[in-house]
Amino acid sequence: MTAAQQQLIERLRGELGPGGVIDDPADIAPWLTDWRGRYHGASPVLLAPGSTAEVQAVVRGAAALGVPLVPQGGNSGMVGGATPPADGSALLVSLRRLNRVRAIDRSARLMVAEAGCILQNVHEAALEQGLRFPLTLGGKGSATIGGLVSTNAGGTQVLKFGTMRSLVLGIEAVLPDGTLHDGLTPLKKDNRGPSFDQLLCGAEGTLGIVTAATLRLYPAVAERAVAWIGVADPFRALELLRMMQVRTDRVEGFEIVPADTLGHVLEHIPGTRAPLAAAHRWNVLVEATVDGPGDSPAALLEALLGEGLERGLVEDAVLAGSEAQAEAFWKLRDSISEAERATGPAAQHDISVPVDDMPRFLVEGAAEVERAFPGVEASGFGHLGDGNIHFHVRAAARQGPDWYEREAPAVSRLVHDLVTAAGGSISAEHGIGQMKRDELARLSPGRVAALRALKAGLDPQGLFNPGKLVR
Amino acid sequence: MTAAQQQLIERLRGELGPGGVIDDPADIAPWLTDWRGRYHGASPVLLAPGSTAEVQAVVRGAAALGVPLVPQGGNSGMVGGATPPADGSALLVSLRRLNRVRAIDRSARLMVAEAGCILQNVHEAALEQGLRFPLTLGGKGSATIGGLVSTNAGGTQVLKFGTMRSLVLGIEAVLPDGTLHDGLTPLKKDNRGPSFDQLLCGAEGTLGIVTAATLRLYPAVAERAVAWIGVADPFRALELLRMMQVRTDRVEGFEIVPADTLGHVLEHIPGTRAPLAAAHRWNVLVEATVDGPGDSPAALLEALLGEGLERGLVEDAVLAGSEAQAEAFWKLRDSISEAERATGPAAQHDISVPVDDMPRFLVEGAAEVERAFPGVEASGFGHLGDGNIHFHVRAAARQGPDWYEREAPAVSRLVHDLVTAAGGSISAEHGIGQMKRDELARLSPGRVAALRALKAGLDPQGLFNPGKLVR
Repeated sequence: MTAAQQQLIERLRGELGPGGVIDDPADIAPWLTDWRGRYHGASPVLLAPGSTAEVQAVVRGAAALGVPLVPQGGNSGMVGGATPPADGSALLVSLRRLNRVRAIDRSARLMVAEAGCILQNVHEAALEQGLRFPLTLGGKGSATIGGLVSTNAGGTQVLKFGTMRSLVLGIEAVLPDGTLHDGLTPLKKDNRGPSFDQLLCGAEGTLGIVTAATLRLYPAVAERAVAWIGVADPFRALELLRMMQVRTDRVEGFEIVPADTLGHVLEHIPGTRAPLAAAHRWNVLVEATVDGPGDSPAALLEALLGEGLERGLVEDAVLAGSEAQAEAFWKLRDSISEAERATGPAAQHDISVPVDDMPRFLVEGAAEVERAFPGVEASGFGHLGDGNIHFHVRAAARQGPDWYEREAPAVSRLVHDLVTAAGGSISAEHGIGQMKRDELARLSPGRVAALRALKAGLDPQGLFNPGKLVR
Repeated sequence: MTAAQQQLIERLRGELGPGGVIDDPADIAPWLTDWRGRYHGASPVLLAPGSTAEVQAVVRGAAALGVPLVPQGGNSGMVGGATPPADGSALLVSLRRLNRVRAIDRSARLMVAEAGCILQNVHEAALEQGLRFPLTLGGKGSATIGGLVSTNAGGTQVLKFGTMRSLVLGIEAVLPDGTLHDGLTPLKKDNRGPSFDQLLCGAEGTLGIVTAATLRLYPAVAERAVAWIGVADPFRALELLRMMQVRTDRVEGFEIVPADTLGHVLEHIPGTRAPLAAAHRWNVLVEATVDGPGDSPAALLEALLGEGLERGLVEDAVLAGSEAQAEAFWKLRDSISEAERATGPAAQHDISVPVDDMPRFLVEGAAEVERAFPGVEASGFGHLGDGNIHFHVRAAARQGPDWYEREAPAVSRLVHDLVTAAGGSISAEHGIGQMKRDELARLSPGRVAALRALKAGLDPQGLFNPGKLVR
């Protein structure tokens, strides 16, 4: 522990309420490793402020003493963005105690939620008012609002509702000099310079520590329909989506799953079964909803699938006949990560290209990677309608666990080169963190220079989440 | 002219194509005064680069020699944001020659337009493809895409389509160090740090010079219906809007006009007449549209107005019976600025508060200002549904033209204090420029400190639009 750290910790023992400074290594340990288990950090104590004012006290003290801070929410990020440096030079700051829903305005459809609120609790608080916060993702039981804002999280309903950026109407955050940015008031128009709310979305805690957000709510789902569809290729899948989008704005999930990926799920996840009789080279999971009385979404999907069959876009399809079956279809999609882990080592990529280019990328990108690394299997699944897929490259058979360290970096460089050549992004929804920082610098030097300049302006001491996003 | 300016100009004579450096004072003069005629600047030459590469050449040269630049589009801003300093220390850079529509993608509903494209030309280019760029405002014949982005422009259709920020999918801009930010590729998901596209919206040319933008297009309007409505007060006006919004998402204009303001229009604008037989204390102009075959918007509005009458929200209403009458209704709204100018000196404010608080602000804010400054008349008109009105305080009768300089600053300080106390913004859609810079610093020191930090990071020499937004 440095002298400055020690001085800050002593000061904060006085300034933070009980539970604000956690010393027991056993209580700290679970938060020092990212959930993928790839990054391991150290922090002499865990700071757990209980209010925005206490976060300000932490930041002011840290700024005065020059102590780096690493903010953390649910610790379920994918890129090591919330894991402190291994040398213990930074203090870990948990926002989880800021977990109040401060207000829900039913008629304006707004919720003010603190940074530590867990996504699932936000879902439930909205639902109690007959409303819905539509962003959802696999980690909803751990992911917090502050982390979701700071990574501009996506998930499965982006197609209709956008990413976190478009669901956040305002943000409260403590800036690196300790001043409070109070943007919670939902002004529909405010042109006092560029938007700090938007700037903090996706900044990964490097420019400010988010303490609360005003969230946009929607009417609760009254009824949903879910279908599993076999298609010949991703080109037809995208054409099917485009056909549906011309007819209706009720399609809110449209996930593509290739045959090999579905095979891994069926093999490794107990209790799963294939929804369709025959195997198809590609599959699509589609969900349509209504938020009030009116047309049944099942009838809507049935008509759309009929038209897709006639046009030769759909090979076969089945509509979930019950909520249980709908859940079973979604489980196939949501278990992919787990199934792939069981399959063996893989280099995983969270990438985007323009939506219309994604079918070609899925086919040609996979072929190119398989040519360059004989024996590997490459395929992508996920959010076709957002131009965002998770592109996995699995080791050739009989490769040891050292394959990842040996070959994955070169595989990832090739995938990132292909994405960059297609005008895409090497991080569509997970962020940069520490995992992709060097690749970002390699491929986007201009962007990194501009990010560094932003960082230098707002955090000249470089104390907020050092080493993440940019070095 | 400074030696550095002279050196830069000589260098650019070689680097820019013909017409790139304009010397004739008569050609420069029209661009040195803002369109309200309040700010007068000087610039030894007018730089008019003809391509993004030429803008980069200008910026690189300026950065190397330490010469400040003031970017300018249509010069129709409201806050002096594009007028160079009066001492001639900066060079004016016109983006008007960058006026190509680079591409329109009909199926993806996207347009890539250069910064100098005039809004009306963008409307027409979209319409030729059966599409629509929905943002519109009084200055559409002069306002350019670069200026609209840099001021995050609003206008009359924000209710449905949002401000420029939500219509821009990507931006190309030259940053103060001369690097190009190339964000034109429309990625729906991209989490490589915070969004520079969003950062440049509303930055008023202080962080980058916008050279092009990818714009979101919508289906063209197939049919519109316009009604003029008399209401008792703004509380009922907002309730009427809320009632309509529950029933339909086709209402895209909802403008409120008080009796006194309508009176000034009828008095000063030739060829105007009152739409309703009796005078009403407040009026609402509402527009509904459809973009394809289906329900008639006139039938929809008629039903909604009938319901409004039954509920006691509407006193009287008339639906435009022809496109000419619809135009006449809109002319009443669009002539307000001109009519108010003819009425006498007034302090004008472009303000926002949370939408639900706006009716109270309209009534109580006006009363408070009239109490504090006996004899003045205060009232607000405009975008009620956005929580944004233009709040004008007119001089008492028999005041000379010196009233503005004598009393308006104190009036504006009171209005801004009231807005700030209500959690609102002293600039809802016009920006800060030089006109509101000192008021912003007085009322929002934390925000100004953060804006200065941003500016210091991205533009450490302070060369981009110096003295605007922050000092």
